[in-house]
Amino acid sequence: MAELTHLDEHGAARMVDVSGKSETHRTAVAEGRIRMSSEALEALTQGDLPKGDAFAASRIAGIMAAKRTGELIPLCHPLGLESVTIDFAVEDDGIRVEASASLTGRTGVEMEVMTAASIALLTLYDMGKAIDKGMVIDSVRLLSKTGGKSGDWRARP
Amino acid sequence: MAELTHLDEHGAARMVDVSGKSETHRTAVAEGRIRMSSEALEALTQGDLPKGDAFAASRIAGIMAAKRTGELIPLCHPLGLESVTIDFAVEDDGIRVEASASLTGRTGVEMEVMTAASIALLTLYDMGKAIDKGMVIDSVRLLSKTGGKSGDWRARP
Amino acid sequence: MAELTHLDEHGAARMVDVSGKSETHRTAVAEGRIRMSSEALEALTQGDLPKGDAFAASRIAGIMAAKRTGELIPLCHPLGLESVTIDFAVEDDGIRVEASASLTGRTGVEMEVMTAASIALLTLYDMGKAIDKGMVIDSVRLLSKTGGKSGDWRARP
Amino acid sequence: MAELTHLDEHGAARMVDVSGKSETHRTAVAEGRIRMSSEALEALTQGDLPKGDAFAASRIAGIMAAKRTGELIPLCHPLGLESVTIDFAVEDDGIRVEASASLTGRTGVEMEVMTAASIALLTLYDMGKAIDKGMVIDSVRLLSKTGGKSGDWRARP
Amino acid sequence: MAELTHLDEHGAARMVDVSGKSETHRTAVAEGRIRMSSEALEALTQGDLPKGDAFAASRIAGIMAAKRTGELIPLCHPLGLESVTIDFAVEDDGIRVEASASLTGRTGVEMEVMTAASIALLTLYDMGKAIDKGMVIDSVRLLSKTGGKSGDWRARP
Amino acid sequence: MAELTHLDEHGAARMVDVSGKSETHRTAVAEGRIRMSSEALEALTQGDLPKGDAFAASRIAGIMAAKRTGELIPLCHPLGLESVTIDFAVEDDGIRVEASASLTGRTGVEMEVMTAASIALLTLYDMGKAIDKGMVIDSVRLLSKTGGKSGDWRARP
Repeated sequence: MAELTHLDEHGAARMVDVSGKSETHRTAVAEGRIRMSSEALEALTQGDLPKGDAFAASRIAGIMAAKRTGELIPLCHPLGLESVTIDFAVEDDGIRVEASASLTGRTGVEMEVMTAASIALLTLYDMGKAIDKGMVIDSVRLLSKTGGKSGDWRARP
Repeated sequence: MAELTHLDEHGAARMVDVSGKSETHRTAVAEGRIRMSSEALEALTQGDLPKGDAFAASRIAGIMAAKRTGELIPLCHPLGLESVTIDFAVEDDGIRVEASASLTGRTGVEMEVMTAASIALLTLYDMGKAIDKGMVIDSVRLLSKTGGKSGDWRARP
Repeated sequence: MAELTHLDEHGAARMVDVSGKSETHRTAVAEGRIRMSSEALEALTQGDLPKGDAFAASRIAGIMAAKRTGELIPLCHPLGLESVTIDFAVEDDGIRVEASASLTGRTGVEMEVMTAASIALLTLYDMGKAIDKGMVIDSVRLLSKTGGKSGDWRARP
Repeated sequence: MAELTHLDEHGAARMVDVSGKSETHRTAVAEGRIRMSSEALEALTQGDLPKGDAFAASRIAGIMAAKRTGELIPLCHPLGLESVTIDFAVEDDGIRVEASASLTGRTGVEMEVMTAASIALLTLYDMGKAIDKGMVIDSVRLLSKTGGKSGDWRARP
Repeated sequence: MAELTHLDEHGAARMVDVSGKSETHRTAVAEGRIRMSSEALEALTQGDLPKGDAFAASRIAGIMAAKRTGELIPLCHPLGLESVTIDFAVEDDGIRVEASASLTGRTGVEMEVMTAASIALLTLYDMGKAIDKGMVIDSVRLLSKTGGKSGDWRARP
Repeated sequence: MAELTHLDEHGAARMVDVSGKSETHRTAVAEGRIRMSSEALEALTQGDLPKGDAFAASRIAGIMAAKRTGELIPLCHPLGLESVTIDFAVEDDGIRVEASASLTGRTGVEMEVMTAASIALLTLYDMGKAIDKGMVIDSVRLLSKTGGKSGDWRARP
């Protein structure tokens, strides 16, 4: 049966030893969506563009959260990220967020992009919640990763 | 047209003034799901129970993140939460997380429970990602809130 | 001779006891400037407007830093700020930042607005430093405060 | 026209990719001043010496802030600083702070010393503000940097 | 049998609801010791006095940690402390630290003074460890608390 | 006489320059104890096992604190830890905590394991304090370290 690497043989949580891994260049991309009423979507955008600082606040929150992933996720290694970007796409019923990051290090940046996408989406929720408390965050998932011993990985389309 | 309260009339982000609001007792509940392969679900659980520290790590990460919401979400007010709980339900294709919080204060705790649920789910992703990188976080949403001038609110079933 | 309230009679630093003070509504405003080359100023602005996310990043950094003042300044009391705003004015030789905050509490928000203005200015430095490392942050000072036992105060013009 | 490296071609903020840069030894020095009334200056010093913990609190706040620069300045890379020092000089109308830091890494420590100097100065403001709210922080600027592709740089005298 | 208030009936950790408690004035005092070689003790002190910034660094670290107790101890409520002080006594075989804090609130400050004392002691360890790695932190305990429903409490001598 | 490396020749605190040190593999182990009444010990354990999330909360708090040591201890270098584990042993009159960590870097992880053990013990205090406020944290000390120029070290038994 598959084992959880973050638990030892007694089920105790631990920060797994990565000192034996080699430093390689690693990247990861995650995405997520927030679905909302047309009224909220209209308030957050002007056509395809953000209104005022709306998307900038979300983008900066996502970037800053990526840097603090190791403080938020108990068993994550603290990492010195080398790049983070957050992109938005306005869709029919909401907004899509894509987060990318890279690093030269002993462990990957999957959690960093998942966290960045989640906090960027929560910031959009915060922006719009006075209009639509029923917004839903959906489909937060890893799209791809490269580097490291387990090699490259890509989500099914 | 509906306006975003977090932006001023020029579109500039701001932390809205809540000093005129009265201190009332406020609660909020949010939920979210993480869908995963049966192999990953089996590794995280033993029947309906968590294996070892798996759910404890997620629960504690969620509680700790709730307390730091004001550091993560740029325009959120810093709050002195009076209670936070995180509950899990094992479902057929994944795990459901429910986060609750309460406060006596001038602003609600919606963002705190949304953040707690999101970080608890991300911690489960971190736990299981060595087995299944394709896990998806879904349906993160507010279930209910009480208190404050806007009164009680409940999500549609 | 005037005494430093943050040191006891032996010169030891302490967080002064404010429990005897009454909770009143308090506000404060601070300002500061960053002087830069015309090339850097042109890169940060388009006419009187910020280019892209330039000012949004500075504004959000200032707001977030205001909330964390008690973590940065050793003897500051942790405060639950009720509002924070950051404004910019493009001047001939640089950018002026003004930070405002308010609170109902036992101690004032002077340090919060001074910190918000400083971090907003540092973020502008970070934005422009690839073009002009010689930018100078100047004239960071309190403009006014209201509330509390010591009453209202206004800087000399 | 000069471009802002922290914004992409659409004006969106990003944490710039430094993974292609080589790890070199880097240093930076920044300075700043706080001007104050003779009464406040006398309270903070005894002749040329700090009174009690006054300068120690400022020095430690500056060192600790240098380590957290990546949390405060949105687009800064998180760095593993290898040294930080803060020095003071008592001047006729105030106090001069100088902050130095070094690192072996892919990006420089200019923001770290600018942030350290700013927070050290804000801590002195906090110490003296009960005596003189009109203190002014001035001339916060980079004095020099070494290392990295852009090479050494020194401020004009 | 006595029950742990931080666990619910299923053993799940939670942040206990204190919203029903009344806001009262609360204080707490904790102490702890660090025992060390005479060589290390001599290096940290000059007679009964700290050498240079040695005790100031410890005192400030303790005060700052008290403010962050809610971030460090998973189930602690975030609190707006109203005072914190740290005192030292040089003893024959080491240094004694005493931490005091107060608050007007719904829950006590016992964890805040225990945390402040612990971090102040760890900072002394860090100061002296190049001379004596064998230093031992001992007898960290609550001395007294006042306020709240459970009333006053004092440790046995 | 032995000198404190964290103070310069004038007694000023500094973050010591480690850039000249070589990157080597380093490990450290620390331990500590919390003594408590049999009633409290019984409430925290079931035989030799933790009750519910009691030890998991302590373990996770210790791991998370290890990662934030550089934020808590003023003159510690920020480190990218490569592993952290926390173990418990139930003893007759209390609980023993052991913390281990490793790193490939220019400075050791002694403070990280001392901090992890201290925060894990404080979390147990927090868990049990409703039953026994008189619990005492004792014998927090370094057990061993390996790597670095000063080589291996082991505490006397």
